[in-house]
Amino acid sequence: MARERQARRREGHEIEFGRIVAFSDGVFSIAITLLVLNLSISHHLTDGEVGNALWEQREQLLAYAISFAVIARFWIVHHSFFSEVTAFDGRLISLNMLYLGCLVLIPFSSSVLGEYGGQLPAVVVYSANLTAVVLVGQWMSWDARHAGLTKMDAETATENLVRALFIVGVFLFSIVIALFDASIAPFCWLLLFVEGRGHVIERLSGRRSA
Amino acid sequence: MARERQARRREGHEIEFGRIVAFSDGVFSIAITLLVLNLSISHHLTDGEVGNALWEQREQLLAYAISFAVIARFWIVHHSFFSEVTAFDGRLISLNMLYLGCLVLIPFSSSVLGEYGGQLPAVVVYSANLTAVVLVGQWMSWDARHAGLTKMDAETATENLVRALFIVGVFLFSIVIALFDASIAPFCWLLLFVEGRGHVIERLSGRRSA
Amino acid sequence: MARERQARRREGHEIEFGRIVAFSDGVFSIAITLLVLNLSISHHLTDGEVGNALWEQREQLLAYAISFAVIARFWIVHHSFFSEVTAFDGRLISLNMLYLGCLVLIPFSSSVLGEYGGQLPAVVVYSANLTAVVLVGQWMSWDARHAGLTKMDAETATENLVRALFIVGVFLFSIVIALFDASIAPFCWLLLFVEGRGHVIERLSGRRSA
Amino acid sequence: MARERQARRREGHEIEFGRIVAFSDGVFSIAITLLVLNLSISHHLTDGEVGNALWEQREQLLAYAISFAVIARFWIVHHSFFSEVTAFDGRLISLNMLYLGCLVLIPFSSSVLGEYGGQLPAVVVYSANLTAVVLVGQWMSWDARHAGLTKMDAETATENLVRALFIVGVFLFSIVIALFDASIAPFCWLLLFVEGRGHVIERLSGRRSA
Repeated sequence: MARERQARRREGHEIEFGRIVAFSDGVFSIAITLLVLNLSISHHLTDGEVGNALWEQREQLLAYAISFAVIARFWIVHHSFFSEVTAFDGRLISLNMLYLGCLVLIPFSSSVLGEYGGQLPAVVVYSANLTAVVLVGQWMSWDARHAGLTKMDAETATENLVRALFIVGVFLFSIVIALFDASIAPFCWLLLFVEGRGHVIERLSGRRSA
Repeated sequence: MARERQARRREGHEIEFGRIVAFSDGVFSIAITLLVLNLSISHHLTDGEVGNALWEQREQLLAYAISFAVIARFWIVHHSFFSEVTAFDGRLISLNMLYLGCLVLIPFSSSVLGEYGGQLPAVVVYSANLTAVVLVGQWMSWDARHAGLTKMDAETATENLVRALFIVGVFLFSIVIALFDASIAPFCWLLLFVEGRGHVIERLSGRRSA
Repeated sequence: MARERQARRREGHEIEFGRIVAFSDGVFSIAITLLVLNLSISHHLTDGEVGNALWEQREQLLAYAISFAVIARFWIVHHSFFSEVTAFDGRLISLNMLYLGCLVLIPFSSSVLGEYGGQLPAVVVYSANLTAVVLVGQWMSWDARHAGLTKMDAETATENLVRALFIVGVFLFSIVIALFDASIAPFCWLLLFVEGRGHVIERLSGRRSA
Repeated sequence: MARERQARRREGHEIEFGRIVAFSDGVFSIAITLLVLNLSISHHLTDGEVGNALWEQREQLLAYAISFAVIARFWIVHHSFFSEVTAFDGRLISLNMLYLGCLVLIPFSSSVLGEYGGQLPAVVVYSANLTAVVLVGQWMSWDARHAGLTKMDAETATENLVRALFIVGVFLFSIVIALFDASIAPFCWLLLFVEGRGHVIERLSGRRSA
């Protein structure tokens, strides 16, 4: 395998590796913070209108909360993935950029969701965006394992894949639901967080203590 | 206690811990910088209108100054808290994300305050936002101590709690004031900085020298 | 050479050097994330209009994808250049700032491209912006080599120069094409990525294994 | 001196110190990148209008270039100052926050300058903003020296003060000029860069080699 041979570079390039991670962290932290720009209030409202204008932001606030949690979760998964990476090559960098390119779209999808959450196109756009992030993440993970760039074991990789398929499934399901009643669809996504909590704790705090 | 057992992970995971802190710092620095976007000037004003348009930004400038100081102060407290954290688990990360999720709303609340500072809804939104940050911060602090993730001593924790309750009290007080005259309410917040100066100096520069 | 004598400062100033790199990385990650702000959706659309409004963003999405890839690629080249820098002086810092100053304009050029991609001025502005980044990058590289601040060998420098001239050539070519049909011009830029993929893999994963 | 006694904390708190610097660098890199948001193009222009609309951005582009150079320069000075800091206390952190609070206003002042550069209020706002940054920077520097937090020698401090007064003088001078013809005033600021180039090279590349 020509690629695997060329690709190998492990610690000893810690500064370069650190910059990839730091760049990713920068993008994550900016994307998550830009979410706040979706909340806004008009200028020149009269006294009675201010309360209403704020109340009308409740869906944007909900979209903010969802997207903040989503990006936070993606960051944790990304963080966890890169903590097991032992080498990198141009392809991992490219896939990571593709991953970030999908991730950075979330503030836009989130604004669409916040503005038109009860409508099919918004649910589709948001679901498609998050699905893209999850799938590219799996692609990156699969590719890194295939090229011997990570110490992630087969069992963890399978678990992650199952989890990713579950997430994608939830989004597809929410799109189907949205065909009938788009305003219900976002509630399907709550399933993700139920699943998510277990994941995070398990991964970060003593995996399989036996 | 199942959780405490699983959670323990101290230095030896310095890179991972460093990334949590770096991510938080990134979010803080972006949120504090986005405050400037609340200041703006219209296009295509005539010569005489430019000065007026700038003068009309004075309340936004005041809101900017207040919020910059507030976020700066939260950063110092966060900084100080994490300097005493000795281990982390998924829950600390989640609570920290929740903390940041509240913090990142400040540029929005600040824009509302700058635009409608003299009105009740603006005072309520701003107060509620800062109160949320303070309370989640205390929750995170309490939880970390409870799970043995920090070397913060009981006395400091109590001091911090008192301080937090004081801050929350000031905000509740300002809301009550706002019911009578909303334009006075922001001045109540000055109390926080009187208290704050002592805190910062004490914490960062030789605590209890005896 | 007075300048070379004064300029020399190598590792031993790692913290200062690290800050230059970290500052650059920060600017890169913010610029690449700000691209998402070019995507937007109007408020208060009726049900039927939401889908259309999203569809109208397709050119901005394309511009986003192109610019994300472009900035990502520039980051990789910048990253690669600085990994071979062994000393720095005020001039390298100034040239790096000039480089970043051109780079940060990309979100603007990209918004012009996304909005008016089929028109000559948009093609010219975008091409000029990227050309400026490439040329300043070469200037910085040439200057650093001339002043003995990098361990880059002559062969690599020549390769990079050829590559840069190729890129500049593609942009000039696309402007010429745009004079006839501006909507075709952006497709010329695809040539850059064909070339680019070879470059990245070659540079980062075992150069000339013999 | 009660304060000096309490304040002392030198290396041994490198992580905490590093976070102050990293936070500042983050703010600098975001502020400098946000400048690009001052450039914009209207939607829905007809074919002939695009070129004109871009041409109308020339003053914003000039303001961008000036402000980018200004923030870059402030970063270099800040960088240089903190490389000589050997200890920190709450007051240094607070002054640094005040410094950053003034700095972050530059994207706003710059947008005013770009939009209304030929008018007195714009010149005053921009000059006042930069003057504030310079003066707070000197205050921070003076205070740090006074409290024994820096190894900067008296000679350098004096040089810096002279330089700062020169900068403030240039801005006051430009305001006076603006009273007669505001469109000329920005050109006065070119004096700063003449002076600046010497400074940067001198500070960063072998100071007083004898």
